[in-house]
Amino acid sequence: MSGLFVTFEGGEGGGKTTQLKLTEAWLRSLDYPVTTTREPGGTELGQKIRALLLQGGEVSNRAELLLLMADRAHHVETCIQPHLDRGFIVLCDRYYDSTIAYQGYGRGMDLDAIARINGIATNGLQPDVTLWLDLEVSVGLARAKQVSGNPDRMERLDLEFHQRVVRGFRELAMREGDRIVRVDGSQSSEAVQAEIQTILKPYLK
Amino acid sequence: MSGLFVTFEGGEGGGKTTQLKLTEAWLRSLDYPVTTTREPGGTELGQKIRALLLQGGEVSNRAELLLLMADRAHHVETCIQPHLDRGFIVLCDRYYDSTIAYQGYGRGMDLDAIARINGIATNGLQPDVTLWLDLEVSVGLARAKQVSGNPDRMERLDLEFHQRVVRGFRELAMREGDRIVRVDGSQSSEAVQAEIQTILKPYLK
Repeated sequence: MSGLFVTFEGGEGGGKTTQLKLTEAWLRSLDYPVTTTREPGGTELGQKIRALLLQGGEVSNRAELLLLMADRAHHVETCIQPHLDRGFIVLCDRYYDSTIAYQGYGRGMDLDAIARINGIATNGLQPDVTLWLDLEVSVGLARAKQVSGNPDRMERLDLEFHQRVVRGFRELAMREGDRIVRVDGSQSSEAVQAEIQTILKPYLK
Repeated sequence: MSGLFVTFEGGEGGGKTTQLKLTEAWLRSLDYPVTTTREPGGTELGQKIRALLLQGGEVSNRAELLLLMADRAHHVETCIQPHLDRGFIVLCDRYYDSTIAYQGYGRGMDLDAIARINGIATNGLQPDVTLWLDLEVSVGLARAKQVSGNPDRMERLDLEFHQRVVRGFRELAMREGDRIVRVDGSQSSEAVQAEIQTILKPYLK
């Protein structure tokens, strides 16, 4: 028995986390076994890695990339894959598309190298479906600032960085249209959730 | 002006750390600019990564590999390469040969994958010369236990693991005989240091 692996992706302030929670509540109301998690930081080890990444200390780009991959490797092996094997629906806040968008497009790191390391870190595990919450960068950043109050290391990066990230998600969605579904993040939270439910229904057994 | 990059490699208890310190003292007595460092843990970020690796909590093999690589990427970029650029002799306790020997041969992870990630983590930086302190496994482990008292996560692994590690170093030394020089670690500390000085002299300007 194999579950369903759903990832939530997108830039800052697109409503990923809110929608993930709403989706979890909806699936639970339908009695599906569901678990929610996130990257980085979905495991005990991952929380320590996340702290290293977000604390604001000096982390070189290549080290950042490899720390994210270490988090992912541990997350897939000890959390995501075991849940899928037991038939769970796994809802994950960010996965490898974020690494491609942020480290690849945003920081300008080599996309082939990222793909190769991703293959090792994920052990080949791909999402069944990816919900890309797309939102104009300036709107998303303003929203993220409202929510967190204190911007983290990623949120502090400049507008152009975040525009490159969004371009990354756009190109990924064009290239992998079978897996990645764009959802208009500028709608009301209710409208976004309704759209997500429509997208996910065909995947539910 | 480019410096000299010397790495010290080998299994547990081979005397790497002692010999590194003796080598540092000798080079300082000759007025060479020299710095010593180690992997994992040669930087502030690296010390936190090292703590994650050695604390004994659950770390999956692929996560361990990628954490070591993150440590290396940061170490090369913020410590080793800048020192080499300023003309320093850099003496480093473990570098990528250890990853090949411990994670590749010891844990049985894919050697090609390790080589590819190493290429990214090191940004292509290879040692000018590598001193491999070779010692019979049982002798080395007994020595390591005497020194540390409380064995760490690596030292606790079984004899067969450590024998695979030594086989890894042996095969590396055969394949890269121009770079890797074997030193008989069963000799007295003074004899080992004399041999190391003989090996390094031709590299000194």
